[in-house]
Amino acid sequence: MATVARTPGASPWRKAARDQDREIKRDAVLRTAARLFAENGYHGTSLELVAEALEISRPTVYFYIKSKDEILFECVRIALEMIEAEAQAAMDRGGSAFEQLIAVMRKYAEIITMDFGMCLVRVGDSPLTEESRRKVHKIEASIDKRMRALVQQSVDEGDLAPCDPKMAAFVIAGALNSIARWYRPGGGKSAAEICNEFIGMIVNGLGRRDKPLDFQV
Amino acid sequence: MATVARTPGASPWRKAARDQDREIKRDAVLRTAARLFAENGYHGTSLELVAEALEISRPTVYFYIKSKDEILFECVRIALEMIEAEAQAAMDRGGSAFEQLIAVMRKYAEIITMDFGMCLVRVGDSPLTEESRRKVHKIEASIDKRMRALVQQSVDEGDLAPCDPKMAAFVIAGALNSIARWYRPGGGKSAAEICNEFIGMIVNGLGRRDKPLDFQV
Repeated sequence: MATVARTPGASPWRKAARDQDREIKRDAVLRTAARLFAENGYHGTSLELVAEALEISRPTVYFYIKSKDEILFECVRIALEMIEAEAQAAMDRGGSAFEQLIAVMRKYAEIITMDFGMCLVRVGDSPLTEESRRKVHKIEASIDKRMRALVQQSVDEGDLAPCDPKMAAFVIAGALNSIARWYRPGGGKSAAEICNEFIGMIVNGLGRRDKPLDFQV
Repeated sequence: MATVARTPGASPWRKAARDQDREIKRDAVLRTAARLFAENGYHGTSLELVAEALEISRPTVYFYIKSKDEILFECVRIALEMIEAEAQAAMDRGGSAFEQLIAVMRKYAEIITMDFGMCLVRVGDSPLTEESRRKVHKIEASIDKRMRALVQQSVDEGDLAPCDPKMAAFVIAGALNSIARWYRPGGGKSAAEICNEFIGMIVNGLGRRDKPLDFQV
């Protein structure tokens, strides 16, 4: 029987498999850290704790990431890029700007009630280095720009009341972000139910629609 | 000329003056810390930095407060008690529940755009000890209870649309809190203008009131 001299690591298939394995393990490190950061805060979570939760050693954690700063940056980046990709997908599907806005809000709320998104809202970028924060702000600004554009377009198409799109985008993000601050999976209402209720209140307002409001703002 | 043997510190007037002086200086320490915490985060602000900003020494800071934890606790407590007191005052003035709710929202927004309130929203209670956090949660729960009650009463009086008061209170607090996250004094709009715009959007919603909305939530 012929034998082949195996050169360890030389086969691209083997390398691909190892790369994939590494990718899966790195993702597990990030996801676990995101959950712990959201639960205990960034400064309340040591890499020791992350390692413990994964039943690996602290040095093993360092095989997948360079520093705690890198972990948080990656968690925040992943969440923001998920939001950005979903916003793009919703806009690609077309329909009225208002339909697109509702779709983006729904996806946004969905993402911030999951590990990376909850870390994004609860921890944010303030513990990051200046350089990492700048990168985060760039993606945030891009998402914000899309939201404002969808609000403006919805006003132009006659679905939303005239408003300052910047302020409206803050109201939307502020109200939705608050879900991630108190939501616990397995509570009374499901994340989807809560999101729908919030979106309804943001769009329709808390006031009764069948009578004019006489308050002065 | 007759002389009086002065016993330093024995006079209640002198003591009162010293107590008042101490109170003023302690307030300055807290207010400066609140501003720095809001700007740089709790972990990004050393007591050294607080002392520097006040042009005093670090040991002098310790003359007014025991620890960094105590400072943050006091900042958060003061902000929450201001909100609670304003809510009580608004309710004491009477009027419809809706009028009271608007008054509370306005005061709430006003407080969170000032030093202690901004610290409350941006830093929150997560860096605090378990015991301090429990005390904070107690005041928060009391404010939340008032808000929910005012929402429910506004629904009962026919001013707000039927809703889950718990969810509505979260939408209100979430949208208003977001102001404290990006607001910078001296920007384009004044805090009062922004608050009014936000309250209008929360009550009226972003949708047009003159046409029924056909979106499914």
